[in-house]
Amino acid sequence: MQRWNGWGDESITYALSEDALAFLGERLGPGSAIADATFDDACAQVPASRLAPHPLIDTLPATRVRHALGQSLPDWFKLRHGRIGAVPDGVAFPDSALQVRQLLAYARQACVAVIPHGGGTSVAGHLTVAAGPRPVLALSLVRLCALGHLDREAQLATFGAGVYGPDLEAQLRAHGYTLGHYPQSFEYSTLGGWIATRSSGQQSLRYGRIEQLFAGGEVETPAGTLSIPTFPASAAGIDLREMVLGSEGRLGILTQATVRVSPLPPYEAFHAVFFADWGQAQAAVRTLAQSRLPLCMLRLSNALETQTMLTLAGHKKLVGLLERYLSLRGCGEGKCMLMLGVSGEAGPARAALRGALALARRHKGVHVGRHMGDKWKQGRFRNVYLRNGAWEHGYVIDTVETAVDWPRVAPMMAALEQAGTKALAQHGEQVHAYTHLSHVYAQGASVYTTYVYRLAATFEENMARWRALKDAASAAIVANGGTISHQHGVGTDHAPWLAAEKGELGIAAMRALLRQFDPQGMMNPGKLLPEAGGGL
Amino acid sequence: MQRWNGWGDESITYALSEDALAFLGERLGPGSAIADATFDDACAQVPASRLAPHPLIDTLPATRVRHALGQSLPDWFKLRHGRIGAVPDGVAFPDSALQVRQLLAYARQACVAVIPHGGGTSVAGHLTVAAGPRPVLALSLVRLCALGHLDREAQLATFGAGVYGPDLEAQLRAHGYTLGHYPQSFEYSTLGGWIATRSSGQQSLRYGRIEQLFAGGEVETPAGTLSIPTFPASAAGIDLREMVLGSEGRLGILTQATVRVSPLPPYEAFHAVFFADWGQAQAAVRTLAQSRLPLCMLRLSNALETQTMLTLAGHKKLVGLLERYLSLRGCGEGKCMLMLGVSGEAGPARAALRGALALARRHKGVHVGRHMGDKWKQGRFRNVYLRNGAWEHGYVIDTVETAVDWPRVAPMMAALEQAGTKALAQHGEQVHAYTHLSHVYAQGASVYTTYVYRLAATFEENMARWRALKDAASAAIVANGGTISHQHGVGTDHAPWLAAEKGELGIAAMRALLRQFDPQGMMNPGKLLPEAGGGL
Repeated sequence: MQRWNGWGDESITYALSEDALAFLGERLGPGSAIADATFDDACAQVPASRLAPHPLIDTLPATRVRHALGQSLPDWFKLRHGRIGAVPDGVAFPDSALQVRQLLAYARQACVAVIPHGGGTSVAGHLTVAAGPRPVLALSLVRLCALGHLDREAQLATFGAGVYGPDLEAQLRAHGYTLGHYPQSFEYSTLGGWIATRSSGQQSLRYGRIEQLFAGGEVETPAGTLSIPTFPASAAGIDLREMVLGSEGRLGILTQATVRVSPLPPYEAFHAVFFADWGQAQAAVRTLAQSRLPLCMLRLSNALETQTMLTLAGHKKLVGLLERYLSLRGCGEGKCMLMLGVSGEAGPARAALRGALALARRHKGVHVGRHMGDKWKQGRFRNVYLRNGAWEHGYVIDTVETAVDWPRVAPMMAALEQAGTKALAQHGEQVHAYTHLSHVYAQGASVYTTYVYRLAATFEENMARWRALKDAASAAIVANGGTISHQHGVGTDHAPWLAAEKGELGIAAMRALLRQFDPQGMMNPGKLLPEAGGGL
Repeated sequence: MQRWNGWGDESITYALSEDALAFLGERLGPGSAIADATFDDACAQVPASRLAPHPLIDTLPATRVRHALGQSLPDWFKLRHGRIGAVPDGVAFPDSALQVRQLLAYARQACVAVIPHGGGTSVAGHLTVAAGPRPVLALSLVRLCALGHLDREAQLATFGAGVYGPDLEAQLRAHGYTLGHYPQSFEYSTLGGWIATRSSGQQSLRYGRIEQLFAGGEVETPAGTLSIPTFPASAAGIDLREMVLGSEGRLGILTQATVRVSPLPPYEAFHAVFFADWGQAQAAVRTLAQSRLPLCMLRLSNALETQTMLTLAGHKKLVGLLERYLSLRGCGEGKCMLMLGVSGEAGPARAALRGALALARRHKGVHVGRHMGDKWKQGRFRNVYLRNGAWEHGYVIDTVETAVDWPRVAPMMAALEQAGTKALAQHGEQVHAYTHLSHVYAQGASVYTTYVYRLAATFEENMARWRALKDAASAAIVANGGTISHQHGVGTDHAPWLAAEKGELGIAAMRALLRQFDPQGMMNPGKLLPEAGGGL
C-alpha cells in the first residue's frame, strides 16, 4: 500500500543507523519527531464536494485526500501536521481518451478547474489545489497505462500516458526493449508526468532527456484534440512537441505518448572513482562529458555529500577500510565520489569504461571498482526512502536543483549551500547542505543540493523554515545564472522565479500559447505561470 | 562575385561531360538552353522605391534585385526569364542590434513589411516578396558576422547571426573549434538562417541538427527584445529556443546566437560501401543508425542515384573498373552506395569505422575503401553547381525532401519518384528521379529525391511543370505520413501542406504565438503560415 503522507510503499523502511543519527545529531542537534496526523483525521477535514454527481467522478474523502498533494516538503508538512488545506472536489479515473474528452467538456460547462494527476510525485507544487469558489477536479491518468503499439523497426512504443515507470519498463522488457528513463521518482511517476514536466533520468547521458524520447502523442485540450505525429526529425516550423513538453497540465491532458525505445542493453556496469578534491573532480567530469565517450551516467558528489553517503551507508568497517585505502592514494577529507556507468553491447561498453577510467586516471582519479556501483544501482530507488527515515527522527530533507554552464558550476554549488545555511541561521537552526552534479553535459551540469535540518514542532514554523530556505536558494539560482529547474519543473513553488530567465516577453508568449488551447484558464490554474492578473 | 541568377561564385563551373549529357539525353531527350535575361534587364524592371529615404536603407535597383529571390526553381525561372516580379523596396544592412531595433521601429511606424535575409539560399520561397500595397524592406543580417565570445570551458561560441558558414568555421578554427554544421548550402547560408529554418548538416549524426547546437541568443521582435540565456538543459516550462527555431522570420530577427561547439576533430574519414540492392542497403543503414556507433555521417543513395553519380563523376575508366569489381562481388545493376563517415580522436574514430564496416559486411556490404569518400568530401559543396551546369544544357534539377519512420521509408521513396514522373508525363516530359537518405536516425530517415527534367522555352510552361511536380510530390509526402520538410523549411512553397501534420489546432497555436511577438503581422508575412484570412 502506498503511503498517504510520505514516500513510497508502507512496507519499505529506511532505518537510520546509530552512526548516521550521531552524524546528524552532531551537525544539527538532536531531532524531535512530531506526532503525525492520521489518515482519518485528514479525511474528517474534507468538506462536502461541490461537484454534481457524475458517473466518472469519485468524491469519497479518502480518494480526494490521496490526490490533494504531492511530495514536496510543504506538501509533507500539510499531510503530517494534518493541515491539508484545499482538496479536489472529486477525482476521475478515465480509461479512454473519450472519457477524458467527456470530463473536460463537463468541467468546461460546469466551470470546474482540472488538475491532471499522474503519479503524484511532484516536488514543486504541481498538484496544489487553490482554495476559492471554483470547484476542482483531479483527473488521474493511471488507468491509461497499456502499451498499445510497438514498432520494432522504428523503435517506437505507444503507451497510455498514465503508465508508471516500472509498468512501462515491464511491458517493454517483455519484448526485449527499454525506454531507459529513470528519474529518482521512477517507481511512482508516470510517462505523462515526465513529459509534462521535462523530466530527466539518471541515465540520460545514454538515453537522452524525456524531450529526446518523446516522439509524438495525443493531447486532449479544452480547444480540441492535438495530435502530434511521429517523425524522426522535421524542419516544418515550430515543433508541437515542444508546446507540450513542460506545459505542466496547462494546455491539456496528454492521453497517449509515443516514445523512442532501445533494445535492452546486454551489459551494464556502474563504477566508482574518487578524486582528492572538487577541483580535480569537476575537471575530470567535465572532460568526460566533453569526450563523447558513450557512457550512460556521470554523477559527481562533492566532499560533504561523499562523506554523508559513506556514513549513511552503514557499513562502518568496510567504509573504514575504503577510506584508509583512499587516504593512502591521496584522497583524504575532501575526497569526491564520481559514479560512472556504461550500458550496451559488452564490447563497446567495456571499451567506453576503459576509456573513461583512463581519462579519470589522468585527472588523478582513484578507481575503486564495481562494488559501490552495484550497490548504487541496487539502491537507486531506495534512497528516496531516507526522507521517511530521517523524518521519524525529527529531521527533514529538502532538495533544490538547477543547471548552469561549466564556468558557473562551482560558484552555484557554493551559493546554494550557503543560501540554505544562512536562511536557517535566522531561525537559529543549522543546515547540513551537500551537493552533487546529477546530470552532466558538454556545456555544463545540473547542480543538485540537498538540505537536512531539524523538524520544528509546529506547522507554522516548519513552513516558515521551508519558505526561507526555498526563497534564498531560488534567489541564489537566479543570481548565479541558473535555470529555476533542471528536472523538477516549475509548479507553484518555482513560478515566481520563472520570469528571471524567460523575460516578460517570454512569459507573455507562454501565456498566449496556453490561452490558445485553454481560453477559459481551466487547466491546472496557477501552475507554471501565476494566474493572469496575479502579478507578472 | 556571387551569381545573381544561379548558384554560387561566377568563377566556378560544373561542366557536364559528353557521357553525362548522353546519359541525360537518352533518358529525357535533348535539352535546349534558353537565353538568360541580363542583370541590367532585371534592374530595369524595378519600380521606384516606396520607402522614404532612410540612412540605413539602400534603394538601388541592383541591391533590390539581388535580395528579391532565393534559390528555388521558381526563383531561378523568375531570374533567368527576366520575370522577377515584386522586389523589396529597399535593403538594410544593420551592423548592430540597435540598428535592427531602429529599423523595426521604422518599419512598424511606416507600415512596412520586413523580410529577414541571411544568405538568400532558401529553396522554399522564404524570401518571396508579396506584390501589394504594403512596402517591403529586406533586412540583411550579413554585417552581424563576428565571433563575439568563445567560452572554452562550456564549449559555447557567440556569433552575430548573419555569419556565413565558412566565416563561422574560419573564426572557430582559429581557436581550435568547429560547429560541424554543414548543410549543402554551407558556403552561402548563415547561422541565423539555419536556426530560423531548422537546418540539418551533413554530419548531424555527430554534431546534431541546428536544434541541438543552438543554445541561446537575442531576438529583436516588434514586441521587444527576447533574450534567451544559455543552460545545458532545463525543465523550466516551455523552451523559448523552440519558439525561434523554425519561426522563419515570423516572430522577429535573430541578431546573435550562442552555439555549442566542439574541438576540431583530429581525424576524419569517409568511406564508401556498396550493397547489391535497396533492401539490403536499407536494412544495413537502419542497423547502423540504431547501433549507437559514433559515426558522423550515413548517406545512402538508391540504385538510380548511385548510377547517376557514377556517370556524372566523369572518370569513365575508373568507374568501369569499380563496376567490374563490384559486379564480381555481387553488386550489379541495382547496387546502392552508402557513404559513411567518422570524426574525432583517431583511436575511437577508427574503432567506430571498423565496427561500422563489420556491421555492413554482415549485411553483405562491399567496402571499396576511402578514395570515393575523400572525393565526396572534396566535392561536397561543389555538387550544387551541377544545377548551373545542367541548366546550360537545357535541363533543370529540383529536389524534394521529407522524413519518415523506418517502415515508411521505402514506400515514400517510391511514391516521391513516381509522383514526379506522373506529374510531368501530363506535360509530355520524362523525369529522371533518384533518391538518397541524407540523414538517418534510429527512428527513421530523411528521404531526399532529385528530379531532372527538361527546361521549357517559356516561363509559363516552366512554372507549370514545377507547380505540377511540387504539388504531386507534396501530396505524396502527406499521403505517406512524412513531414513536409526535414531540412529546407516551409516558406511559401510548403505552407499549404503544413496543416496536414500540425492540425488546425497546431496551426492556430503557431499563429497565436507569432501574433504575440508580431501583433501587426509585419514580419515575413505569408511565409510558414499563410496570412490570416487566407485560409489556414
